[in-house]
Amino acid sequence: MNRRQFNSGLLLTTAAAIANGGPLAPAAGAETVRVNGDRLNYQLKYLAQLGKNPQGGVSRVAYSEADRQGREFVMALMREAKLDVSIDAAGNLIGRRKAANSFNAGLPPILFGSHIDSVPEGGNYDGDVGSLGAIEVAQTLAENSLWLRHPIEVIIFQNEEGGLIGSEAVIGALTERELDLVNKSGKTVREGIKFLGGDVSKLASVKREKGSIAAYLELHIEQGGTLEAEKIDIGVVEGIVGINWWDVTIEGFANHAGTTAMNNRQDALLATAKFIEAVNRVVTSVPGRQVGTVGRIQAWPGAPNVIPGKVVCSLELRDLDAAKIQMLYQKIRAEADQIAKSNRVTFDFKDLNANIPAPTDPRIRAIIDSSAKELGLSTKLMPSGAGHDAQDMARIGPVGMIFIPSIGGISHSPKEFSREKDIENGANVLLAAVMKVDKL
Amino acid sequence: MNRRQFNSGLLLTTAAAIANGGPLAPAAGAETVRVNGDRLNYQLKYLAQLGKNPQGGVSRVAYSEADRQGREFVMALMREAKLDVSIDAAGNLIGRRKAANSFNAGLPPILFGSHIDSVPEGGNYDGDVGSLGAIEVAQTLAENSLWLRHPIEVIIFQNEEGGLIGSEAVIGALTERELDLVNKSGKTVREGIKFLGGDVSKLASVKREKGSIAAYLELHIEQGGTLEAEKIDIGVVEGIVGINWWDVTIEGFANHAGTTAMNNRQDALLATAKFIEAVNRVVTSVPGRQVGTVGRIQAWPGAPNVIPGKVVCSLELRDLDAAKIQMLYQKIRAEADQIAKSNRVTFDFKDLNANIPAPTDPRIRAIIDSSAKELGLSTKLMPSGAGHDAQDMARIGPVGMIFIPSIGGISHSPKEFSREKDIENGANVLLAAVMKVDKL
Repeated sequence: MNRRQFNSGLLLTTAAAIANGGPLAPAAGAETVRVNGDRLNYQLKYLAQLGKNPQGGVSRVAYSEADRQGREFVMALMREAKLDVSIDAAGNLIGRRKAANSFNAGLPPILFGSHIDSVPEGGNYDGDVGSLGAIEVAQTLAENSLWLRHPIEVIIFQNEEGGLIGSEAVIGALTERELDLVNKSGKTVREGIKFLGGDVSKLASVKREKGSIAAYLELHIEQGGTLEAEKIDIGVVEGIVGINWWDVTIEGFANHAGTTAMNNRQDALLATAKFIEAVNRVVTSVPGRQVGTVGRIQAWPGAPNVIPGKVVCSLELRDLDAAKIQMLYQKIRAEADQIAKSNRVTFDFKDLNANIPAPTDPRIRAIIDSSAKELGLSTKLMPSGAGHDAQDMARIGPVGMIFIPSIGGISHSPKEFSREKDIENGANVLLAAVMKVDKL
Repeated sequence: MNRRQFNSGLLLTTAAAIANGGPLAPAAGAETVRVNGDRLNYQLKYLAQLGKNPQGGVSRVAYSEADRQGREFVMALMREAKLDVSIDAAGNLIGRRKAANSFNAGLPPILFGSHIDSVPEGGNYDGDVGSLGAIEVAQTLAENSLWLRHPIEVIIFQNEEGGLIGSEAVIGALTERELDLVNKSGKTVREGIKFLGGDVSKLASVKREKGSIAAYLELHIEQGGTLEAEKIDIGVVEGIVGINWWDVTIEGFANHAGTTAMNNRQDALLATAKFIEAVNRVVTSVPGRQVGTVGRIQAWPGAPNVIPGKVVCSLELRDLDAAKIQMLYQKIRAEADQIAKSNRVTFDFKDLNANIPAPTDPRIRAIIDSSAKELGLSTKLMPSGAGHDAQDMARIGPVGMIFIPSIGGISHSPKEFSREKDIENGANVLLAAVMKVDKL
């Protein structure tokens, strides 16, 4: 929401009310309207079947068949919620609803949504709660004939887990390099967009300018254990940490594991092992909430009787302070240089993606906080250690995020779990917040 | 070759000569017969095309399409060498040639051969030189009408790189557990045997009893750098090191890489990194030629933004002394226990395969040594750091192995290389040794 819209909101509402010859919706009692929590939780269970793992959780990796199935389900729910459904050129799903009155047609839309793609062997709440929660809010508005001053758009971003790809496209930040990334589906982002019904040649049409949205709101599970541990109902997100990703390639020399003496080896996996330890040591060497992770590794040729000649692994660093990420990265590079020398291998770092830290909008934070409290829910202001599409959207408009507790702080795992009541609470806070943002 | 056959050999030869009314082959001048080195090296280049990698070398992994193609080529060469070709129930290729005289029909066969399967991204000499060298020896015997007292069998063992599978079957040591192993072809050994034209239900028919073979000889590249460095033509193998393999499973807890604080993690990959370092430290902590390798690793779920919850890696230990392998293994287990405690993960070791150290037969060693010297070649007695099917065959009869230099000591790599002249030398030593063993 840009300043002009914020400031002119009251005026427009008044004008619209006059034009309509009476008070506009929200009708009397709109404050007491609530989402249908049972329906929402039922729909989440249905979505959980699409890409379900035998051992629980889902592998609904972007661009997979399960992703496609999930999106079909989402589009069906959007239509039930009387939203006008489309797939943008980047493959994002959008469900639109016009403003209350044609007089308001010039107002920018309020967006809210999340994503339904998962990490491999992920859980049933990350993204899903915010996505189906957003559709439930639209459904509730429709059922209660509550028309807003602003158009609304429920947006389900594609491939959030692969680097916020869908929202990168919306802010015009998707690069050629990112289009060539391959994810666990085996497809590049470029191929994935086509698979989802998008059109890479028309990506420019997806870009939204700064000020072209009234706001973006996202309901999400915390993915950490703070809310549950402190028995808080709702987290009001103050900002999203920056995330930097690299692909690290370690090259030694592949040789026979039986005939190559220990002191004659250039073992790329042994060097990588030392690197993984170094990442942990560097990241924990300074105080703070920063995290560093090596989550993906592949060694070639990958046979028990061959000394690995090449390894590729991921490196991810996160913090609210971009300068701290850079400081840690430089320390890690220095450690890698030492390992390279002593193990006669080479290290190559490929900078894949960087998401800068993103603060949320103070007015929307206040709205989320008051909306929760009016519902009798306790709140806590907290950072998001996880990245979200909201951090991209923050570059073109004001954003807000609502967290609900993750039991045990477990996420990106089949054991990810949020209670049904918390999910319903989160959706009700989103509904109330959307209605309040509409009045700003 | 069992003792009875060794002792009765001369008698039988004499008897056969009388029965035939004249001197039996080898005819006069048999000592000067030589293999066709150009033909052998040409055939090796042809075989190198089957499963060729874009970057050089081959990936002719057992049970792959390339393996099947290579075996077709080998069978064609066997037929050209006037061998009677068959595939045994274990999928080994056998080219038989009967003895010089029906009077000798009761003599056990002299076997010689190797394997043509490779590791993933392997080279063009490991196994191939001994396989095509053996067929070249049979071809040379046929072309020169040199009939031996013993039947001969050129044997190309299947899936040597996956744990000496073919020769395990021949000695009746192939276990149900091994039949369920999956290699890089994606097939289990059981499926692979069917793919190669074998029949798992008839494996018992493949087993050869102790004493049922006169000898087994194998020509092979050294796969280490000793012969080249010391400018020696032929290595006379004194024994083959024992090899123990384990699959090691490390389980922690998969969780979100952004929201899980560093001190709350149960990172299976970080624990594995410490384990890989520990293996290296333990193996190099005592003097000797032992080696220890972690060559294969997989981490789940394998995404940059998820803390790995599970890792499976290989562990391989080799030494001429089985007790030393056990001592090293126990030290490694103790280190793993420590890592498990400090990183809140579990380690599980699955014992996959053990090849006990196997000495070669002293009389065959002497034959190889004298055969080489008579050809004007220098020799060196040496252990084999690599495992070979010969170590299985040593359990049912006398074995000998002939090494030729590996340039740079490189093996299990596309850069594996042996000189054409050395390959020809090796085949000539094999030819001479087979003819001398025939006279034992």
